[in-house]
Amino acid sequence: MNTVLHLIDGQLVPGGSRSAPVYNPATGAVIREVALADTTTVQRAIESAQEAFPAWRNTPPLKRARILSRLKELLEQNAEKICALITEEHGKVLADAMGELQRGIENVEYASWAPELLKGEHSRNVGPGIDSWSEHQALGVTAGITPFNFPAMVPLWMWPMAVACGNTFVLKPSERDPSSALLVAELALAAGLPPGVLNVVHGDKEAVATLLTDPRVKAVSFVGSTPIAEYVYATGCAHGKRVQALGGAKNHAVVMPDADIPNAVSALMGAAYGSCGERCMAVPLAVCVGEATADAVVAALQAEIAKMKVGPGAAPGVDMGPLVTKAHFEKVRGYVDQGVAEGATLVVDGRGVQVPGFEGGYYLGACLFDHVKPHMRIYREEIFGPVLGVVRVQSLQEAMELIDAHEYGNGTCIFTRDGEAARHFSDHIQVGMVGINVPLPVPVAYHSFGGWKRSLFGDLHAYGPDAVRFYTKRKTITQRWPSAGVREGTVFSFPSSSR
Amino acid sequence: MNTVLHLIDGQLVPGGSRSAPVYNPATGAVIREVALADTTTVQRAIESAQEAFPAWRNTPPLKRARILSRLKELLEQNAEKICALITEEHGKVLADAMGELQRGIENVEYASWAPELLKGEHSRNVGPGIDSWSEHQALGVTAGITPFNFPAMVPLWMWPMAVACGNTFVLKPSERDPSSALLVAELALAAGLPPGVLNVVHGDKEAVATLLTDPRVKAVSFVGSTPIAEYVYATGCAHGKRVQALGGAKNHAVVMPDADIPNAVSALMGAAYGSCGERCMAVPLAVCVGEATADAVVAALQAEIAKMKVGPGAAPGVDMGPLVTKAHFEKVRGYVDQGVAEGATLVVDGRGVQVPGFEGGYYLGACLFDHVKPHMRIYREEIFGPVLGVVRVQSLQEAMELIDAHEYGNGTCIFTRDGEAARHFSDHIQVGMVGINVPLPVPVAYHSFGGWKRSLFGDLHAYGPDAVRFYTKRKTITQRWPSAGVREGTVFSFPSSSR
Amino acid sequence: MNTVLHLIDGQLVPGGSRSAPVYNPATGAVIREVALADTTTVQRAIESAQEAFPAWRNTPPLKRARILSRLKELLEQNAEKICALITEEHGKVLADAMGELQRGIENVEYASWAPELLKGEHSRNVGPGIDSWSEHQALGVTAGITPFNFPAMVPLWMWPMAVACGNTFVLKPSERDPSSALLVAELALAAGLPPGVLNVVHGDKEAVATLLTDPRVKAVSFVGSTPIAEYVYATGCAHGKRVQALGGAKNHAVVMPDADIPNAVSALMGAAYGSCGERCMAVPLAVCVGEATADAVVAALQAEIAKMKVGPGAAPGVDMGPLVTKAHFEKVRGYVDQGVAEGATLVVDGRGVQVPGFEGGYYLGACLFDHVKPHMRIYREEIFGPVLGVVRVQSLQEAMELIDAHEYGNGTCIFTRDGEAARHFSDHIQVGMVGINVPLPVPVAYHSFGGWKRSLFGDLHAYGPDAVRFYTKRKTITQRWPSAGVREGTVFSFPSSSR
Amino acid sequence: MNTVLHLIDGQLVPGGSRSAPVYNPATGAVIREVALADTTTVQRAIESAQEAFPAWRNTPPLKRARILSRLKELLEQNAEKICALITEEHGKVLADAMGELQRGIENVEYASWAPELLKGEHSRNVGPGIDSWSEHQALGVTAGITPFNFPAMVPLWMWPMAVACGNTFVLKPSERDPSSALLVAELALAAGLPPGVLNVVHGDKEAVATLLTDPRVKAVSFVGSTPIAEYVYATGCAHGKRVQALGGAKNHAVVMPDADIPNAVSALMGAAYGSCGERCMAVPLAVCVGEATADAVVAALQAEIAKMKVGPGAAPGVDMGPLVTKAHFEKVRGYVDQGVAEGATLVVDGRGVQVPGFEGGYYLGACLFDHVKPHMRIYREEIFGPVLGVVRVQSLQEAMELIDAHEYGNGTCIFTRDGEAARHFSDHIQVGMVGINVPLPVPVAYHSFGGWKRSLFGDLHAYGPDAVRFYTKRKTITQRWPSAGVREGTVFSFPSSSR
Repeated sequence: MNTVLHLIDGQLVPGGSRSAPVYNPATGAVIREVALADTTTVQRAIESAQEAFPAWRNTPPLKRARILSRLKELLEQNAEKICALITEEHGKVLADAMGELQRGIENVEYASWAPELLKGEHSRNVGPGIDSWSEHQALGVTAGITPFNFPAMVPLWMWPMAVACGNTFVLKPSERDPSSALLVAELALAAGLPPGVLNVVHGDKEAVATLLTDPRVKAVSFVGSTPIAEYVYATGCAHGKRVQALGGAKNHAVVMPDADIPNAVSALMGAAYGSCGERCMAVPLAVCVGEATADAVVAALQAEIAKMKVGPGAAPGVDMGPLVTKAHFEKVRGYVDQGVAEGATLVVDGRGVQVPGFEGGYYLGACLFDHVKPHMRIYREEIFGPVLGVVRVQSLQEAMELIDAHEYGNGTCIFTRDGEAARHFSDHIQVGMVGINVPLPVPVAYHSFGGWKRSLFGDLHAYGPDAVRFYTKRKTITQRWPSAGVREGTVFSFPSSSR
Repeated sequence: MNTVLHLIDGQLVPGGSRSAPVYNPATGAVIREVALADTTTVQRAIESAQEAFPAWRNTPPLKRARILSRLKELLEQNAEKICALITEEHGKVLADAMGELQRGIENVEYASWAPELLKGEHSRNVGPGIDSWSEHQALGVTAGITPFNFPAMVPLWMWPMAVACGNTFVLKPSERDPSSALLVAELALAAGLPPGVLNVVHGDKEAVATLLTDPRVKAVSFVGSTPIAEYVYATGCAHGKRVQALGGAKNHAVVMPDADIPNAVSALMGAAYGSCGERCMAVPLAVCVGEATADAVVAALQAEIAKMKVGPGAAPGVDMGPLVTKAHFEKVRGYVDQGVAEGATLVVDGRGVQVPGFEGGYYLGACLFDHVKPHMRIYREEIFGPVLGVVRVQSLQEAMELIDAHEYGNGTCIFTRDGEAARHFSDHIQVGMVGINVPLPVPVAYHSFGGWKRSLFGDLHAYGPDAVRFYTKRKTITQRWPSAGVREGTVFSFPSSSR
Repeated sequence: MNTVLHLIDGQLVPGGSRSAPVYNPATGAVIREVALADTTTVQRAIESAQEAFPAWRNTPPLKRARILSRLKELLEQNAEKICALITEEHGKVLADAMGELQRGIENVEYASWAPELLKGEHSRNVGPGIDSWSEHQALGVTAGITPFNFPAMVPLWMWPMAVACGNTFVLKPSERDPSSALLVAELALAAGLPPGVLNVVHGDKEAVATLLTDPRVKAVSFVGSTPIAEYVYATGCAHGKRVQALGGAKNHAVVMPDADIPNAVSALMGAAYGSCGERCMAVPLAVCVGEATADAVVAALQAEIAKMKVGPGAAPGVDMGPLVTKAHFEKVRGYVDQGVAEGATLVVDGRGVQVPGFEGGYYLGACLFDHVKPHMRIYREEIFGPVLGVVRVQSLQEAMELIDAHEYGNGTCIFTRDGEAARHFSDHIQVGMVGINVPLPVPVAYHSFGGWKRSLFGDLHAYGPDAVRFYTKRKTITQRWPSAGVREGTVFSFPSSSR
Repeated sequence: MNTVLHLIDGQLVPGGSRSAPVYNPATGAVIREVALADTTTVQRAIESAQEAFPAWRNTPPLKRARILSRLKELLEQNAEKICALITEEHGKVLADAMGELQRGIENVEYASWAPELLKGEHSRNVGPGIDSWSEHQALGVTAGITPFNFPAMVPLWMWPMAVACGNTFVLKPSERDPSSALLVAELALAAGLPPGVLNVVHGDKEAVATLLTDPRVKAVSFVGSTPIAEYVYATGCAHGKRVQALGGAKNHAVVMPDADIPNAVSALMGAAYGSCGERCMAVPLAVCVGEATADAVVAALQAEIAKMKVGPGAAPGVDMGPLVTKAHFEKVRGYVDQGVAEGATLVVDGRGVQVPGFEGGYYLGACLFDHVKPHMRIYREEIFGPVLGVVRVQSLQEAMELIDAHEYGNGTCIFTRDGEAARHFSDHIQVGMVGINVPLPVPVAYHSFGGWKRSLFGDLHAYGPDAVRFYTKRKTITQRWPSAGVREGTVFSFPSSSR
């Protein structure tokens, strides 16, 4: 059985005495091992990044950008191979994997526009004969810690922009599905990224702790659950770093009475069950305004769910693959049990789903709850599974109060055709990413991604324009030249004497 | 004896059972008391800010901006009164106080340009029929904790932009010289700022701890010493806030052999001894490249120092006032003793200075050391007093290595007429604010202020464009409208039925 | 009878042998004369501007900006006086004059933000060791030619930003109502604008021709009718200048069946009859989608018009004042006759209005046509009077085709509550300024004003960000410094020999 | 003999009854014919562009951008083929052709960043509940008329950004060397550009006149000589278009006494003789400050010129190829005769150069004049050939007065190591592109290209950020939604009735 190695200083290397199994969730089989870096190994990666920094920082931005352009081409050429790894280790269906990779490529593309994005502000004559300008300079060694649910995309939110800005990087992808991020990193080397500019270490708490405390690491980007995000933010900041830590979510979709219901339901299906709901931008809650709206939505969802096919992600025609691990499968199933116990109406029960020939896989069918209430755990907590709850309210105001009272504020959306309702909602709602008739309002790569409240810790969002600011520090230069000696009288004397 | 009160919800109020004396450092006399807020009082201020937030956030930016424009006028009209308070409580000479206030007014002016600064980015057709745009929305309650050395200016770095962006604010100025910041806040009310939008609490550790831990406070700006900055950053972040914490400095001025020496020396005089060196942008170290350069600089400095007049800040013709407190005076004098003990050459000794009629004041004359070495405490530590040390090096490279090895990276400057030397220095030096023939490269109000290394914790600098980002959070809206029902066929049916 | 003089080089001076009467349209009386500049006088103004340019261009932007801030204060203090002049010479009611002035003040305010707006783009390392940046430098002498209908505001669209950018300016306001622009210019001098930076010449064709052909004038801004705009654009460009020439309009408001009809009608009243319709952003055409919509709109308009009071603009309670001149009055009345002859239904006839005691004034009551058709002259031509025509169509598509087929494309608006209809309209309509439930979508001062098609000739709009670009030219500097002589070896030799 | 055809609506087509020979200037042989479009043919191209516009304008910017990314790849893959055509028809050496193409590719690259560049400005709450934003919308059909000297690059300055912004385009390349631009256009089709989005017509005055007068063409970009630029600007503007017309140049390089002379001379060699001086950014004048400087520069230039090899551009080791046509060759040689007659010192005479085996080619060796004076025609006029003149002055001030007095203001540079001299020069000089120790300060693709004075007519420069503004028109939308009907009470009634 082969082992997924670390990528340090341009080389695939072992490191650390521990390792962990990597499963195929479609079958439950262990398919490979992944090395778990100890502190020394992580430090070796940091050192490699530190050494690569001075030359990389001095490489003109356009030259750095073009390596990313070449990487974009390589990613397109190797898309099938990368997506096969995503599906194999994560479980999501191939079309989903392709969508994920495509989004990741868009982040590489945006990072390749760095020369435009790095422009500073220049002011002539801030005072008589005095000019001032700002430069967005690189930080040094930066790091990223990424989750299992988008094993290829989330790393691409981070390191391409970090290196485009002149930093070097240490990536610790999820140890549950580490292979696609590693392959992408190898392609980056093939595209011309110098050794040491991007290093990949696999690991667990020990690796995370090293990245958060080593003084050479200047910035940490994290995506994961809220408790870990909070730990990462507090720990990294306590060690003087800049940190952006993206956490959990519980995104509500509001369906107004004037919504185009078939479209809304079609959108909800993808948003709730796509990638088994293992997305921080998934929509696990549909808030229907008015009983008639709720009745129509629930009926239509039920009909749609009946058509869904669950199975291994790599098989043709499958709509939903397995959950990522056995433990997670059990946790999600437990939430369904809990919802029933709490009194929500389980309209569709996916707990008994069978996938012949893949009995070892972690399959759960789509579940649909009606009459979910705010006090229930299935309302309050992030399930991260294929469980959609319908909440019934009597007004948009009530819907908005629910959303604003929730711990998380990642994404939300409203289905309506009314301009006023949409504007009132998008202006006031305490959520960072808002969709108007768009179920998953993930910003495009040239805007930025980030939630509010306990969905994000830090002041700058991920990717897009904010990432440029996160991965650079401002230097402000103020310049005045002394009196016009060379230009005027003394000009003729010294050059003759100096040469 | 009167007591400086808190300003909460538009009212001057007491709060907390403790108080502290406020001294006039020119005489050593206690001139008033300042109330020290307990937790309850700070919470009351936070609550007032929280209640004022919804209405203020919805006030159009231009209307908010115009209140700041009116404040600017009021500050100009009340400049003498404000500066008298600064000098009385801090000690700096009146011209310095006026310079400080003028800088503060420029920050108010910049904040009044908020409608331009708050513009978000709008993208039509991110996909077919889909638009996306970002808004920079207010955070809620924000807070500022400011130091004694610029009692009027540093608060004006913070709250005007915070409120221009739609936030409300709780300010805790230094309890050593609290009166000028309070007067400015009262003028802001007079300019039309609604009660509760800006609150001022005086206090010490207890007040600071409350601001850092209360969950309603979303962001904290701090300026002070590095150990406290570090504590503020770690604590505020551990409580989930965004924090920018500006700490100490030890700014080096490099004098190149081709510098215009008289100009450089004149610049150094102000930079080293202005406001008694109690500035985070002061220049306590002159790094001279070449022995001849050093000899010339030391000789010229010595001559200039001989002309300086030390005395009470409010008296005419005085160049340098007293240090801020007796404790600080003794600390600074101790550093001079230490420098002598460490083997530096004390070229000018200001320890024995006498100011007739003001024997109780905390006066220390300008001190000049030559042959300061990197291992000495007077080289490594921030003295924050009128002590200038000359370091002799043999090349710009050596000078830059010294600077980059130092703990702090706030400001630095180079005196040269050579374009290449200036560019090499400004590009590579690990310092946030760089002057080229400008001794105190404090960025103008429409650029941003911030150091690197242990001079600033956080990812966004103070005031200027960065402050807009610090005091707002990005909301990204993605919008697609459903099929063209109203525009096309069904248009004529429903309006008749809905009205 | 006194004469309105030119303002050249800071002095009120006569110039030219010709003059013209200035009327009070409320009474028909001649109230003063205005000097008409001959070519020599205009050249004198240009020369003054040319001489003032070098020093003004070198004045730091912030210092220039602050003069505009002071002007803003003076305008607020002198608002009544300015507005009295506007009403006296133009005829509009005082509240309208105040609205106009307020908009003008906002342009002064925006220009006072120039230091932010003038920032150039700085790129470090466009190549190894090579930096590049852009500066937005002043052009030199610039000129503005402004119309009678906003005698105070339109000049303030132009010269404050022009001078904020470092240019000097020659303004030729309308000779029909020249006094308010002149008073504003005198206040600018009082605010600190140096003599020669802003000059005002009154005149007619001769003055215009001189401004368009003198090689020292680098840029011309014009607002007026389309034929003159076209002449100004062609002539100015043929003389190598940059020109922005804003012309006529015929703005359509679309009322959808789902519109809030009372609000829409209320909005239309102000948009159609405010300032007698003498606005390039007036709405002389209401396009109603569906017969029922049209019936409701016409009935409500008729009821509102019945409540309007026509009279002298300075009298209390008056809604609409006189037209600007007798000739214009007759032209507008002729259009009403024409509309009747063409077969439109004259629902409200304002032709017989009487204002007792002001029989010499140029009063026309509000006129309302229904069943206006695209072939009619009252549809095709700009009337610039209190004449509103209702066009009936069966779909938004039909409305949009009408609008796009019209010669002009200045402003338009749609009344609807449907997000899709609004977005489809605003995206596709070939008009430069679009209102969604906003009848006069005049952009705020921090956005830019400009129509499309034959409503504007040039590539940059008036005021706002575009004005910064119009009044500056880009300079791009690329900088590489030679080898590190001073910084390295040779450093010690030459300074000793050069001093 | 084959004929270079037009590219209209995605097809290579003939058009017009006239044609012209295309020469190989290295041999003097006619190598092909080029069709010359008559008015009908140009109108056909415009019509194709007009028809392609609506769909292309609605294509999301990112999709448009990616076609340009693919074109970039194709250009890299076909570089040799394109450059062979450039050299064959223009004469420049292959390395020069490659440099030209590389610059052109960078413009394609920049245009592929369009989604970032097209972002508009969004303002929430310009008033209560009112939002306003701007969009940079496409113009429609745009056109470019390009010169012989950069047959591949200058078209790439124009059409990629025009189409990235959603416009369609008609290109008229120089009829003297039309093949490379046509090949690039065919590659654009291969990259996915829809037929009609980019059309190429070859032609002369008739084609130009059609493009300038057809009302469907909304914008014209031109690069050529100043008299034609002036005609294009006047004519296009008189027909209501926006026009940017780049004309001639006479770029001065100032050599200061403290310059690094060997570097400056090396830079001057390339700048003066590269591409036979047929560049609008060539440096035909070296202004030396001080006699000693001039003596050193002239001596070093003479030595360098002696090493140059003249010959066919496609041959290895050749430094300079032939001039573009026989007529141009004679014109340039005539200038050399003229310079001698005017009294300048002809230090190096390239008139007698012989290239064995290529006697029919238009070869002229490098010519160097010393003691050139401002009154001479070789000083005042653009020669566009390998003729460098040295002007001797006594101070930078004198050099700057010369430059500012010259008709043209395209580019200039200064060689110095003095920061003050460089800043004084770059701030004040009346030239659009300034180099500091950079002989040809052609801005990189993410900045903009443009001269001042009679080197450019229009207000926006070519390529870079300015091109985005030139190829788009601003639309400003102001939006307020009516009262909250749907959101509040009436919400439940209408949906039931409307579906």
